Parts: sequence; C-alpha cells; structure tokens
Amino acid sequence: MVASAEHGISREELRLAARNHAMPLEGLRWPITPVGLHYLLVHYDVPLVDPEGWRLDVSGAVERPVSLTLDELRERPVVELTVTMECAGNGRALIEPRPLSQPWLMEAVGAATWRGVPLASLLDEAAPAVSAVEVVFSALDRGIEAGVEQRYERSLSLAEARESGAVLAYDMNGDPLPPQHGFPLRLVVPGWYGMTNVKWLTGITVTTEPFGGYQNATSYRYRRSEAEPGRTVTHMRPRSLMVPPGIPDFFTRARTVEIGPVGLEGRAWSGLEPVVRVEVSADGGTTWADAELTHDFDDPFAWRGWSYRWQAARGDHVLCCRATDAAGETQPLEPEWNVGGYENNAVQRVDVHVR
Amino acid sequence: MVASAEHGISREELRLAARNHAMPLEGLRWPITPVGLHYLLVHYDVPLVDPEGWRLDVSGAVERPVSLTLDELRERPVVELTVTMECAGNGRALIEPRPLSQPWLMEAVGAATWRGVPLASLLDEAAPAVSAVEVVFSALDRGIEAGVEQRYERSLSLAEARESGAVLAYDMNGDPLPPQHGFPLRLVVPGWYGMTNVKWLTGITVTTEPFGGYQNATSYRYRRSEAEPGRTVTHMRPRSLMVPPGIPDFFTRARTVEIGPVGLEGRAWSGLEPVVRVEVSADGGTTWADAELTHDFDDPFAWRGWSYRWQAARGDHVLCCRATDAAGETQPLEPEWNVGGYENNAVQRVDVHVR
Repeated sequence: MVASAEHGISREELRLAARNHAMPLEGLRWPITPVGLHYLLVHYDVPLVDPEGWRLDVSGAVERPVSLTLDELRERPVVELTVTMECAGNGRALIEPRPLSQPWLMEAVGAATWRGVPLASLLDEAAPAVSAVEVVFSALDRGIEAGVEQRYERSLSLAEARESGAVLAYDMNGDPLPPQHGFPLRLVVPGWYGMTNVKWLTGITVTTEPFGGYQNATSYRYRRSEAEPGRTVTHMRPRSLMVPPGIPDFFTRARTVEIGPVGLEGRAWSGLEPVVRVEVSADGGTTWADAELTHDFDDPFAWRGWSYRWQAARGDHVLCCRATDAAGETQPLEPEWNVGGYENNAVQRVDVHVR
Repeated sequence: MVASAEHGISREELRLAARNHAMPLEGLRWPITPVGLHYLLVHYDVPLVDPEGWRLDVSGAVERPVSLTLDELRERPVVELTVTMECAGNGRALIEPRPLSQPWLMEAVGAATWRGVPLASLLDEAAPAVSAVEVVFSALDRGIEAGVEQRYERSLSLAEARESGAVLAYDMNGDPLPPQHGFPLRLVVPGWYGMTNVKWLTGITVTTEPFGGYQNATSYRYRRSEAEPGRTVTHMRPRSLMVPPGIPDFFTRARTVEIGPVGLEGRAWSGLEPVVRVEVSADGGTTWADAELTHDFDDPFAWRGWSYRWQAARGDHVLCCRATDAAGETQPLEPEWNVGGYENNAVQRVDVHVR
C-alpha cells in the first residue's frame, strides 16, 4: 500500500502520527534524550501492567526453565548501557511513492541509558538444548496487523541473543521504565533497529525451528517488490542529524538564521560499524566539509556528537550532513524505495534563510 | 487557511504532528498521565536552558520589582495541584473544512501534578501599581508566526492572574520539569486551555495597557470568519474521552471486541464548572445511559473517572461518551466551525466490531 505525495497524509497515517512521536530535532542537543522526547512507536496499545502479577518466563527448548519476578530480576548482577535507538521506518514519509504505515519524517530516534540484566546470563542459566536455533521474545501488547491477530513477538537467532550484548532492561535513565517504553521490562539489543527491542516483555522461548511470526516473517523485511521474500531488517545504517539552526516558523518550520558565523551541531550513529566521519554541506550536497566529532560515551552503539562552524552568507541555503562508518558506508543523497519503507538513511536537508 | 478532508494532511501539518504529540487514549487509564504520554505542543523550539544563568524577573508597573533564581523560588512556600490540561486546538483535524495548524484529533490532553509558587503571592510582593491592568508572561522560546517574529508571550488580566489559583511550577509529577514541559519554570493556570500555561517562563511584566501581542490579539481567538475580531479563548469546555475497548488494528486503529460484558472507562473534565454527568451511547449518539463517576482528586480542575458496563452484542457499533457540567453545558454531537479550529469538544466516536 503506497500513496503519492500529492494525495497528502491519510487519516489513518495521522492517527498513527498523533499516537507515536519522533524526537524534535532540537532534542539532539541532549546527549541522553529526556524521557518524552525519545521517539516512541507502539504497535498496539500501551498496556497497564501490574508489576505484582507480572513474571518473566524463560522456557521452550531449555534444560532449566526460569521464572522470575521483577524483584528477583533486580537482585541479579546489573549491566548498564547507553544506546541510540532508531525506528526501522524512520524516513518512510520521505520515500516516493510513500509506503502506508507510521509516517515518520527523519526524527524517529533517541538515546537512553538502560539498566538491567544481561540476556546472555539468563540464557546460560536456562541452558538451551543443543538443537536450539532461535529465541522468541513475547510481549503483553496485543492487536491485529494485516489481518493477523497476534501479540507482539520478535525472534533473534540463539547466537545473536547470546552475543549481541542484549539487556533485559527495567530502568531507563535511572528510573523504572515509563509505561510507554515497556514497563516493567523490555529487551534492548544495541545497534539494532527499534522493532527488535521488545517492550512489555513477559516470555522468552527458545525454539528448535526458525520463528515464523508476523513481525519477523512478514513485516520488517527489506523488499523491492511485494513478490520477493526480501531480507530481514536488523542493524541501524549510518545516519547523522543536525539541530536546525536559527528560529523556526511555527507552521512551516522554515528556519531564519542571522548572517555571520553559525555553530552547526548534531549527532551521528550506526548499528554496523563506528561512525568515523561526519561531513556538512551548505549547498544541498554539492560540496562537503568535515565536521568535528566528539566521543561522549564509551558504549559503542551510543551516538557521537559533531559540530561545524558555518559562515552564513545572506540568502537561501540547503544545509546537509552525512555520516560515514568504519566500513566506508556513507549516507546516500536519495532514499532507496522499498515496500515497507525501511532503512531510509538518506541525508537530512534543512532549508534556511539567512538575513 | 483551511483544507478539505479529501486533500489529506499536508507536509507542514505532518511536520507539526511528528514534533507535537497527543496522549494515546489508553493513557486515560492513568489518573496522573505518565510524562511522555502527556500531550505536548511547542510553538517554536524546546530551548536548552542553563538553570544557573536563568532568573525570573517580575517588573513593569510594580512598586518593588523582583528577580529570583531557581533556588530562591524553591525556598518559598510551596503549593501543589493536579490539573487536566488540554490544547485549545484539540479536535481541530476533525473540523471540516480543516483549519491548517497542528492537526490534533481528540487526544491533546493530559493530567499532571504541578508543584511551585503561587503566582498571587509573588504579585503581591511586587505590588502592582493602581493603574495596572494586565500581566504578561514571557518565555525563552522564539520564532515566527504568520510573519510576526516573537518570543512566546501571553497575558492575563491582573484579576485573573491573582484569582485563578495560578502556580509558577518547577516540578511535574514530583520531578523537575522535563525540558519539553518548560524547564526550569512554567505557568500553570488551572482550568484554562494549554496556551495560557506559558513554558520556559523568564519574565512577568505588569502593564497599564492591554497586551497587544500575537498570542492574545491575533491567535487563540474564537472567530466565525476572518473578518470578525472574535473573542479570546480561555477556559476548557466540558469534555469526556473513552479508552477504546478491545484490541486495535495497527494501521487503522479499528477496534475488535469480544461479545459479552465490556467495562468501558474514561475520564471527563471542564475548565468552567465541575463535571456532574457522563453519558455513554452504543448507537452513535441516538440513545444514552448514565456512566458512574469517580472522584479521584480534590483539585477542582483535575479530571474525573467514569465507567460503564456495556453488554456488547455481535456486530458493528459506534460508542460515544459525553460530559455535562454543573452549569448544564453538554458536549455537542458535531463541532462548530471556527477560523482557528479551537474549542472543538464534540463527542468522541469509537467504531468497534464485536465478534
């Protein structure tokens, strides 16, 4: 299902945009995104969970099934990590024709510090069978998607579950998870797009067959046509974003900047390899100059800050930024169309008027 | 500027919808809305404020100007109140033709507990001149609106400022204000629509003339045509909302409910008079039955809970709820068109399929 730009955003897309929200780009100023500014995508409804009745069950093809209360989880050895998390559909509404789903522009991102229990230690304790191949993470939220009734579930391979540094997180930025970010427990898999980080987690099931659930087998697949099976969407591609300089117009968000030196700043991240370079263009991507990179966190999947001193001349300009990772992958100038509108890491364009 | 429904939502409206967010309706389950679920409207950009350099200045037509640091404000006698806050433009995108601005559906609301300093005590201390008529609240956020460059400013009459129970709030739900809700200080005027509750407050100026600023004189006026001056938008009109029952479809948000008894629930509020009645309809507003009301807060401008046991029969139904206040004002079935799309308190309609 797609729509072209001239038809405008549909009522269904607006309903999703009113519920789910991006991070206003000035939120890039904070190294850790304040709760409420961090992007949020909820497939079904935010459940109201009674922590007293809640348990995490690790079961399936394991030697020793585990069932834990929230207090028991909090008594286990703690790990803390800061990660940048981005929705796999970020940038979808900028792809033409536009795939019909949550109509993200480019700000579906945020960074948080998560505290919880290493997934690997809990899996080791449960002792997966030698025939085990995947781990399925099951949530409490329930709904219908493309005609399929389901609770939200996603799987990782057993190797990914063990080796990705994944955390079962009960705290976000030093406080218990807010309801909308998965209270009382969520999965956090550093470097992966948001859909992997299952919220309202209640079950972990080790399987001896690949998981065929909707969110792995049907959705979150990168496909050039409806006919092809496509590949699964996994790690975040390199991306950089800029705090729009100057002051905005309320309705159009068009920016007005004063003539003279302007400090441009933003952040860059990748789920694949470390970001090693950010470049800035003030002419819509024709010429580029290197920005200065900062190193704010030791965690490899937290974003890096960048800054660039721009000499703003009177007139209209299109500012852009682009990140390159250690493997040499650079953000493209134009998005690649795909059925679900995933992984659009095309460079941001900010129109500014200098006076 | 208006658009008809068949043209869809414009790119400008989508940009606003991506930044500002409503409260997902299941958020009605919480008596105090968790931060991040509370609705948010930011006219310009969220400023990054250094609390060390920040001061609140009370000046203008006063005998004793006052200038306070955040620590000095926190040392003053404290008041705490719980209020329901709603955007004056809530429901705008449901008005036909649609006024072009932030395209709210019906969920631009939330309830919070604010702690701070009574505005009246600070005004008394500054001692307004006998010729004083208004009080102007000036914020740190800056932008352009309809061609007018400005920082966000709104005024109250001196009587309203003194007698409305307004608070200069530095805490929200027990923590310092988050950046997006006005850190370090905001105005909270119980019962008034959101635009009155100036965030990132830094100046309070007592004036001897009515304030002619954009947000009072041009915007936030209820006008039936562009030509008329209109009346100023002030207090929230009575409204009730319902947690949509059953489970949602991800894209359409259409609800599926199981046959049998269903507990419907929601909340109701008004900025005028107390809500004294909530009714529920399961046939699109043809017949109505009384819901049970709860009294969760002593604060007069906090919302009330309501519940209703609905016997769901197989088929398609349109659920509605409507509130009536102590003065007899009841929510209308259809919105009244006006230029800015303000004060649309028409009853919510929830399509459900019972199986």
